[in-house]
Amino acid sequence: MKRTAILLIDCPDQKGIVAGVADFLSRHNANILHADQHQDAERDLFLMRVEWDLDGFDITLEDFPRRFAPVADRFSMRWRLERSDRPLRVGLFVSKSVHCLVDLLYRHQSGELACEIPLVISNHEEGRRWCDFYGIPFFHVPVEPGSKKEAEVRQLALLEAHKVDLVVLARYMQVITPDFVARFPRRIINVHHSFLPAFVGAKPYHRAFERGVKLIGATSHYVTDELDEGPIIEQDVMRISHRDSLDDLLEKGRDLEKIVLSRGLRWHLNHRILVYDHKTVVFD
Amino acid sequence: MKRTAILLIDCPDQKGIVAGVADFLSRHNANILHADQHQDAERDLFLMRVEWDLDGFDITLEDFPRRFAPVADRFSMRWRLERSDRPLRVGLFVSKSVHCLVDLLYRHQSGELACEIPLVISNHEEGRRWCDFYGIPFFHVPVEPGSKKEAEVRQLALLEAHKVDLVVLARYMQVITPDFVARFPRRIINVHHSFLPAFVGAKPYHRAFERGVKLIGATSHYVTDELDEGPIIEQDVMRISHRDSLDDLLEKGRDLEKIVLSRGLRWHLNHRILVYDHKTVVFD
Amino acid sequence: MKRTAILLIDCPDQKGIVAGVADFLSRHNANILHADQHQDAERDLFLMRVEWDLDGFDITLEDFPRRFAPVADRFSMRWRLERSDRPLRVGLFVSKSVHCLVDLLYRHQSGELACEIPLVISNHEEGRRWCDFYGIPFFHVPVEPGSKKEAEVRQLALLEAHKVDLVVLARYMQVITPDFVARFPRRIINVHHSFLPAFVGAKPYHRAFERGVKLIGATSHYVTDELDEGPIIEQDVMRISHRDSLDDLLEKGRDLEKIVLSRGLRWHLNHRILVYDHKTVVFD
Amino acid sequence: MKRTAILLIDCPDQKGIVAGVADFLSRHNANILHADQHQDAERDLFLMRVEWDLDGFDITLEDFPRRFAPVADRFSMRWRLERSDRPLRVGLFVSKSVHCLVDLLYRHQSGELACEIPLVISNHEEGRRWCDFYGIPFFHVPVEPGSKKEAEVRQLALLEAHKVDLVVLARYMQVITPDFVARFPRRIINVHHSFLPAFVGAKPYHRAFERGVKLIGATSHYVTDELDEGPIIEQDVMRISHRDSLDDLLEKGRDLEKIVLSRGLRWHLNHRILVYDHKTVVFD
Repeated sequence: MKRTAILLIDCPDQKGIVAGVADFLSRHNANILHADQHQDAERDLFLMRVEWDLDGFDITLEDFPRRFAPVADRFSMRWRLERSDRPLRVGLFVSKSVHCLVDLLYRHQSGELACEIPLVISNHEEGRRWCDFYGIPFFHVPVEPGSKKEAEVRQLALLEAHKVDLVVLARYMQVITPDFVARFPRRIINVHHSFLPAFVGAKPYHRAFERGVKLIGATSHYVTDELDEGPIIEQDVMRISHRDSLDDLLEKGRDLEKIVLSRGLRWHLNHRILVYDHKTVVFD
Repeated sequence: MKRTAILLIDCPDQKGIVAGVADFLSRHNANILHADQHQDAERDLFLMRVEWDLDGFDITLEDFPRRFAPVADRFSMRWRLERSDRPLRVGLFVSKSVHCLVDLLYRHQSGELACEIPLVISNHEEGRRWCDFYGIPFFHVPVEPGSKKEAEVRQLALLEAHKVDLVVLARYMQVITPDFVARFPRRIINVHHSFLPAFVGAKPYHRAFERGVKLIGATSHYVTDELDEGPIIEQDVMRISHRDSLDDLLEKGRDLEKIVLSRGLRWHLNHRILVYDHKTVVFD
Repeated sequence: MKRTAILLIDCPDQKGIVAGVADFLSRHNANILHADQHQDAERDLFLMRVEWDLDGFDITLEDFPRRFAPVADRFSMRWRLERSDRPLRVGLFVSKSVHCLVDLLYRHQSGELACEIPLVISNHEEGRRWCDFYGIPFFHVPVEPGSKKEAEVRQLALLEAHKVDLVVLARYMQVITPDFVARFPRRIINVHHSFLPAFVGAKPYHRAFERGVKLIGATSHYVTDELDEGPIIEQDVMRISHRDSLDDLLEKGRDLEKIVLSRGLRWHLNHRILVYDHKTVVFD
Repeated sequence: MKRTAILLIDCPDQKGIVAGVADFLSRHNANILHADQHQDAERDLFLMRVEWDLDGFDITLEDFPRRFAPVADRFSMRWRLERSDRPLRVGLFVSKSVHCLVDLLYRHQSGELACEIPLVISNHEEGRRWCDFYGIPFFHVPVEPGSKKEAEVRQLALLEAHKVDLVVLARYMQVITPDFVARFPRRIINVHHSFLPAFVGAKPYHRAFERGVKLIGATSHYVTDELDEGPIIEQDVMRISHRDSLDDLLEKGRDLEKIVLSRGLRWHLNHRILVYDHKTVVFD
């Protein structure tokens, strides 16, 4: 596995940005492995992701901000630097339906997900045995009506103690408060069990069944203060027919949820996602 | 091509319905080609479609109602009989975007759609040249603000004069009034350019673009009094990415619209669709 | 959960079959829950699946063959009767790649698969820990060059001792001999990691990568004596691009394999599949 | 519509290529609209597509080769320059099945395809009336057993006389000879009515039907000397079931063929495709 650095940039669109960045990297002997960019013509916005091999690169990552500053200033860039040898620390939240949790734990164990999972937090006990099996600490934080605030305080303390970078709501059936969201801006990924923006809110499969749709879907997205309104990362659908009962929808849906959540998480871990406004760019 | 009859039934679910129908047909020497049924357990409803070869069947279709009445009465059936040698007469409505019109006219000419198209009605002139080419009478009925009522009167007169059984709104951009709908209950098919119930109403692609969805869709459905709320016949989706401009969405969407509308129309023409409540059963 | 019986029939197509079966069931007070049929016009073949509630049915299943014989004889039927309260006993085979095994064990534990899994057989040790976790007996039967015959003797003894009805090759990387296949005719399901008939045989993802296809696929099928030529049960595909490395293909492929194998298995367990020639009818 | 230039490059992978190109363009005041690159790690190959606005660019396109030569030489590049204001001239070939022809002519007329279509060549007369309708010259060049050579001589003369850049075989049912292919290297696009490499050669739908596959597909690809072995541009599939007759497969297949051929053609027209070995990179 190569040690790589990933630079993510957004700035007002103008001439010379690619040349500016590529020239900077070239002068410091970077071997670019991937470079991708996107212009949003409506917003006059330029977004870029560039990944290079750190082998031979002649600037230390500690020194990078100072050295890159002239380029960044010239183009009024917002930027961040990520590195492949510092895997993100992911905290998983789950309630009673554990299919996404079980799926993510297996993918993690088999090497599909380049992250550490220091803990799982749940308001129920169902997920504990899989966490025990995979050796992941499991914390039961009950959430009762009226005690959500206290629960979140405890959750946040656990996340902080375990140095969590990213929160993944793997079918966690409690609404997160704005205070919690503010602590992990664009760093909470949720899976919603519908093709958003159809069926925002509770019981989407029931409503899909009632409405008589011919495809059901699932969506992974970043969590913002507005329910199910955050930037969409990935969506997928599956065909259904009148022969499918509500239970069939739930069952097919579980496969969709596992796929869109694990894909979305993988892209985040590989630093492929740039968020602007309430949309995402996924550099593939 | 075989001459066939198609019997469509719905009734309260109970024992013996299949036996009752099959026995009746068997006694009259019917060669059943397709039989399909569906139970809606929640609503305690039984739905059935059975198609048989008329060759050898010893009841005339004129006499069928009287002869079938005892079976129908015994199970409190609503039923209708269709026949493959009486193709439906379809009236197409279109506005300025003619891709669905052009697609349907070609499919009709090539034999994919078992129907007659006695006329096309449009509030614009764009579609006329294709109608001329395919030899389909084209009627321009302008719809101005304040003149919708008069326009509908004229449209309905045209449909009646041409003995139209089914109306297809092939990207017709005017809302139909309840009075019009009442004249063609469950006999108006519309294509909506989104994955319903997402993006009900105007400019769905613009809103899909703004929302940053990762798939766009299209839906064919029967028209009811509530906008975009009628029973869904068919839906399909296509993957998009941040690289797709709004124009790309419109372009990809056109392919989806052609497919879901032509499929939905074909199923209706083959008498494969049963509607109940606001859902469809499509016997495939 | 209702106790149901499922009758699966194939016979030469002729008039009166549906009536004959439905009348027989009706006279014995069966409440039909699903009935589906298919005619293969080319082969003049009639296939039927009918499922009814055993509650109130006035024939014991032991007595069924004798009572149904006149109907079966009249139409020269091949038939079999299955019952929902006798879940099949499934033996899983796996090699080093355990993703399908882990997926099936979880689905089984969560109630998605209506079967018993009395044992797992593997030529490697990788799968043992998941079997231990889920409480499924695991048998390591090494297969060395030259010892396949002995290995199969041992495998067959294990399957017999555990009264296995159905064998599922969940990424079992050894070719099964005709003798083994003959012991489980149409009762061995395999997952092949390509969209058959493309890339029959070894290393399909490598060959897909080399060929530059734009979609990869997976296939579940019954095993026959000819490699990858058995009746196809289910297939699915996923889009890839030049950006996907061979490892990406393998990873995406694993999701496909899990889905087509679990779907195919579920349909078999629900007695939805009829095989004729080298094709399947899946009554959904 | 902006006037743009598109530079397509492939060369051995090494450091500094992106910087070299971006710096060259930047120094000449190019406003880069899209830049995309790909490394094939196995082959140690670097591929790039960069598109810029010609407005303000201070080199004439006539002078470009001389000015760009130092960069190209430094990295041993193969490159070509395309321009959006010089639409390609496309010659369409068709036989009796005209659905792809009709589809492409409509898309062209409606502005979806940025090309000129100076002529259509066919070994049958079926397509003539649509060509007449859309005002495209139609040439009937019969191909009899034994006369293929003469036919190709006439076809090539027509293509030359009409200054054709790209040949599209829109369901043209004659095999093209190597001599013909050599005249349009990587500039002949064919649509094959299967999911290649499954069902290479004749009657793929018949063979798909016989094999009992659960999805059918279509493929657009560049034509090489080996039948159906050329670099794949685009593929898509559609679900089928035992209920689909061979005619249903043909009908569903036509929709697939229209989509994969028109997409592939559009990408070629937008200079998005780079071919290497027998694979394509499609910069989207």
